[in-house]
Amino acid sequence: MTLRIAIIGAGPSGLAQLRAFESARGKGAEIPEIVCFEKQEDWGGIWNYTWRTGLDEYGEPIHGSMYRYLWSNGPKEALEFADYTFEEHFGFPISSYPPRAVLRDYIVGRVSKGDIRKYIRFRSPVSNLVYSGETKKFTVTVRDLVNDSHYAEVFDYVVVASGHFSTPNVPYFPGLEKFPGRVLHSHDFRDAAEFAGKSVLCVGSSYSAEDIGTQCYKYGARKITFSYRTKPMGFAFPDAFQEVPLLLKVDGHTAHFKDGSSAEVDAIILCTGYQHHFPFLPDDLRLKTNNRLWPLGMYKGVIWEKNPKLIYLGMQDQYYTFNMFDAQAWFARDVIMGHITLPSLEEMQADSAAWREKEEASTGASYDIDFQTAYVRDLIDRTDYPDFKPEVVAEQFKEWKHHKEEDVLTYRQHSFPSTITGTMAPAHHTPWMEALDDSLEAFLANK
Amino acid sequence: MTLRIAIIGAGPSGLAQLRAFESARGKGAEIPEIVCFEKQEDWGGIWNYTWRTGLDEYGEPIHGSMYRYLWSNGPKEALEFADYTFEEHFGFPISSYPPRAVLRDYIVGRVSKGDIRKYIRFRSPVSNLVYSGETKKFTVTVRDLVNDSHYAEVFDYVVVASGHFSTPNVPYFPGLEKFPGRVLHSHDFRDAAEFAGKSVLCVGSSYSAEDIGTQCYKYGARKITFSYRTKPMGFAFPDAFQEVPLLLKVDGHTAHFKDGSSAEVDAIILCTGYQHHFPFLPDDLRLKTNNRLWPLGMYKGVIWEKNPKLIYLGMQDQYYTFNMFDAQAWFARDVIMGHITLPSLEEMQADSAAWREKEEASTGASYDIDFQTAYVRDLIDRTDYPDFKPEVVAEQFKEWKHHKEEDVLTYRQHSFPSTITGTMAPAHHTPWMEALDDSLEAFLANK
Ligand SMILES: Cc1cc2nc3c(=O)[nH]c(=O)nc-3n(C[C@H](O)[C@H](O)[C@H](O)COP(=O)(O)OP(=O)(O)OC[C@H]3O[C@@H](n4cnc5c(N)ncnc54)[C@H](O)[C@@H]3O)c2cc1C
Ligand SMILES: Cc1cc2nc3c(=O)[nH]c(=O)nc-3n(C[C@H](O)[C@H](O)[C@H](O)COP(=O)(O)OP(=O)(O)OC[C@H]3O[C@@H](n4cnc5c(N)ncnc54)[C@H](O)[C@@H]3O)c2cc1C
Ligand SMILES: NC(=O)c1ccc[n+]([C@@H]2O[C@H](COP(=O)([O-])OP(=O)(O)OC[C@H]3O[C@@H](n4cnc5c(N)ncnc54)[C@H](OP(=O)(O)O)[C@@H]3O)[C@@H](O)[C@H]2O)c1
Ligand SMILES: NC(=O)c1ccc[n+]([C@@H]2O[C@H](COP(=O)([O-])OP(=O)(O)OC[C@H]3O[C@@H](n4cnc5c(N)ncnc54)[C@H](OP(=O)(O)O)[C@@H]3O)[C@@H](O)[C@H]2O)c1
Repeated sequence: MTLRIAIIGAGPSGLAQLRAFESARGKGAEIPEIVCFEKQEDWGGIWNYTWRTGLDEYGEPIHGSMYRYLWSNGPKEALEFADYTFEEHFGFPISSYPPRAVLRDYIVGRVSKGDIRKYIRFRSPVSNLVYSGETKKFTVTVRDLVNDSHYAEVFDYVVVASGHFSTPNVPYFPGLEKFPGRVLHSHDFRDAAEFAGKSVLCVGSSYSAEDIGTQCYKYGARKITFSYRTKPMGFAFPDAFQEVPLLLKVDGHTAHFKDGSSAEVDAIILCTGYQHHFPFLPDDLRLKTNNRLWPLGMYKGVIWEKNPKLIYLGMQDQYYTFNMFDAQAWFARDVIMGHITLPSLEEMQADSAAWREKEEASTGASYDIDFQTAYVRDLIDRTDYPDFKPEVVAEQFKEWKHHKEEDVLTYRQHSFPSTITGTMAPAHHTPWMEALDDSLEAFLANK
Repeated sequence: MTLRIAIIGAGPSGLAQLRAFESARGKGAEIPEIVCFEKQEDWGGIWNYTWRTGLDEYGEPIHGSMYRYLWSNGPKEALEFADYTFEEHFGFPISSYPPRAVLRDYIVGRVSKGDIRKYIRFRSPVSNLVYSGETKKFTVTVRDLVNDSHYAEVFDYVVVASGHFSTPNVPYFPGLEKFPGRVLHSHDFRDAAEFAGKSVLCVGSSYSAEDIGTQCYKYGARKITFSYRTKPMGFAFPDAFQEVPLLLKVDGHTAHFKDGSSAEVDAIILCTGYQHHFPFLPDDLRLKTNNRLWPLGMYKGVIWEKNPKLIYLGMQDQYYTFNMFDAQAWFARDVIMGHITLPSLEEMQADSAAWREKEEASTGASYDIDFQTAYVRDLIDRTDYPDFKPEVVAEQFKEWKHHKEEDVLTYRQHSFPSTITGTMAPAHHTPWMEALDDSLEAFLANK
């Protein structure tokens, strides 16, 4: 009796799972029946740009957190699919830091080969899911957005690939309700042009704060103030920037900070991260964690220990992304297809506890990069996913960290070699600060 | 065996239902066990202002659509609670068009008398609901936001009072995805000050377009363009305003309209109304309608004909609001407590069809006001809700319509008498266009 697998989400993780099964089918294996439920009208996950914020035209929460003019913030060589290189997709080498549309084209390109799209039901968000102890099966309720109706189907396994950078974490600061200008979370940020000529306050000190602040500067903002909670980013920013401690309160246009300093601001962008949010999951199957390298409860970061028929992909904080999701998906596939037998619950929990202990011994970014590298290595050694040399990718991440420390406005001008083809990426034809057009056409022009 | 009633929502409609039962209890009746589930942290419904947009701090869709500096857009005398007058609440007469905080104070004041709050569980959105044909009972699943967990309880009746002006209807217009400025729906509009000095395009020609456009003008916007689909509002606006046909597309900052005209705009506000949206309801219990005076499927606009244990409040388009919700809640109470026996399904459907036929014979606003008056009259004649003379209120609505046609920027300066106490409202101390402070304190000052 063929197994039925439900995949929730057709972003890089969900597509990795489809690709993993397709790869097994290509090698002659008999694969389960698969249905991939996707809320959006197309595949690509968070890499699909939308002008909409809040709720979509059907009243569903908008998934997209990306914004216009977004460029990769890590080298493309560090996320390259081991079974579908950039050179195979584009036909020629491209520079190391592509804009959103180019990376989306690459993600979609891999799954456009073969007949993967047929597994996916678009405009079909999963709204509810229950597991029956007797039948050992999941009943998945789906909202058919186009027909405005619901239906349910039964599955043996469920793969949750719905991402964790869409539900905003939005803290309150006294005075926000009276601020005479726009207050938004980075999830709702769409176009830096809106803030041209303005003094912008970005609360937070991680990737979103860094990229949105520099973006606004690049597109004409007058002044950028970063307000950090734990520690400043510490990059050498131009004069128009300042890093100050945490926001205390806002009074009219004046923002007051913990060190007694203040700044006049026209807009406030809360770059304060995201929540893992699974409104369709019952409590006992629901992952609860902050954004970290090693959330607990998932064997090898993927198999829900308390019910191994439930699988999560992509739930870790991410230096590695596409290639880690692949490594996870190949592992999940082999568990589902019986090529990998799971140890007991206690052994799975002990394995996870050991990884958590290593995670908590972190001494900083380099340690964390090595931690995720050891994790990805552990996964790819257990499946037939091609060995893309994560140890070399780790060194690229460390070089990248160093480049950012040198100059956070020019780090995207550096080039890296593909760990799979060895080809060195050419420099992009335009420095990032001058590259105002982020379209695929402009990026690939005069190649 | 006492009946168990679930009420979903503690806005004016949900609070009306609680007040109705409390009133019966006050007259010595034995009332059912009631639990009111409210998503927000406080009662008041859409009258609670929040600076947040999109999703709240728990990842739930934001309910609030109100914005700073919002004043009632209809005379307070036309929505006065028949069992708790404005004079009883404030202790002295107040002017006819109060700001948001004053009306919220009044809504909350009525239910702060007595012990109604104990029925309400805050931070408890209903996430799912199923009806069992065998047990004839509802199982209501609730998300406990504070403890991040779910639980379910069983009820004999469910009253859906979750409002219908929170889930935006957001149409697409070509070019929006490339517009170099903010694009938002009126649901996300919070502070007119954000648009000071700007040229603002409002798409839509109903209450939201009218009020947001005039608000932005009042707080310093340079230019307001209204783009209508069916017909223009036709009010005599100052020069800074223009009404043009429907938006065709946007190209850079230039908006192009159906008549070939165009306008340079800095921000686009889609004042394009809302959807009835009940993500917690199964298809067979779910009301599907546009925003109109007589949605079908609900006997007397309230009892779900196909399953009379399900009750809706407040789902009609609204000239009448608070007093109509009261009239509906008193009627629903008497059905639940057996004082009103329902006719057969066929008779209920025939009654609704007759009302729908009258609704569709509309000849304009005056006809519609009389239609809603006849509906409210039909309800209050069936219960002990005090007769607040809806026919007099109807004339007030017609006068209000006339005042707006005279001058849409000064209609809030007119005064009306309470149909319950007869007292004529005093003029407000400051004309609306000059009243920049919408606080309760400023409104009640120098009284
Ligand atoms: C602003 C931003 C910029 C980023 N930039 C980079 C970058 O430069 N480089 C990089 O490597 N990574 C970047 N990332 C990280 C990014 O999350 C990953 O690259 C990748 O998109 C994660 O893939 P995923 O499939 O796990 O999740 P997602 O890409 O989020 O895809 C999840 C999918 O699930 C769908 N879904 C959600 N809920 C449901 C439901 N109930 N039912 C059905 N479908 C559902 C969504 O519609 C979506 O298609 C960025 C993230 C953000 C937020
Ligand atoms: C911008 C705006 C301005 C308005 N101005 C006026 C005005 O000036 N005068 C006037 O008379 N009317 C006005 N209205 C109409 C307004 O809708 C009514 O006055 C009134 O608020 C309707 O009451 P309600 O209880 O039916 O809905 P709401 O006031 O919307 O209350 C519904 C309640 O249900 C809760 N809820 C929703 N979903 C769930 C769930 N799943 N579980 C639990 N709780 C839930 C919400 O949090 C909310 O508290 C305005 C409406 C809008 C949008
Ligand atoms: N391509 C790009 O340029 C790009 C752009 C944006 C985002 N991204 C990606 O998006 C993902 C998420 O990044 P992110 O920066 O949004 O989230 P994140 O990495 O989880 O960082 C969250 C930030 O918010 C701060 N924060 C959280 N709660 C706070 C509070 N109550 N008060 C003040 N500060 C608070 C945190 O401060 P502490 O340090 O004190 O905890 C941290 O700085 C990452 O994978 C990133 O790569 C990429
Ligand atoms: N106190 C206040 O000042 C205040 C302020 C705002 C709102 N409100 C209340 O809020 C409620 C809702 O009012 P509302 O104006 O938001 O909604 P509404 O009354 O339902 O009106 C919706 C408007 O959107 C237009 N529209 C819908 N779809 C469109 C599309 N695809 N393209 C172009 N136009 C489109 C409609 O045009 P058509 O006419 O062509 O259908 C209509 O003009 C009302 O009860 C109102 O009283 C009160």
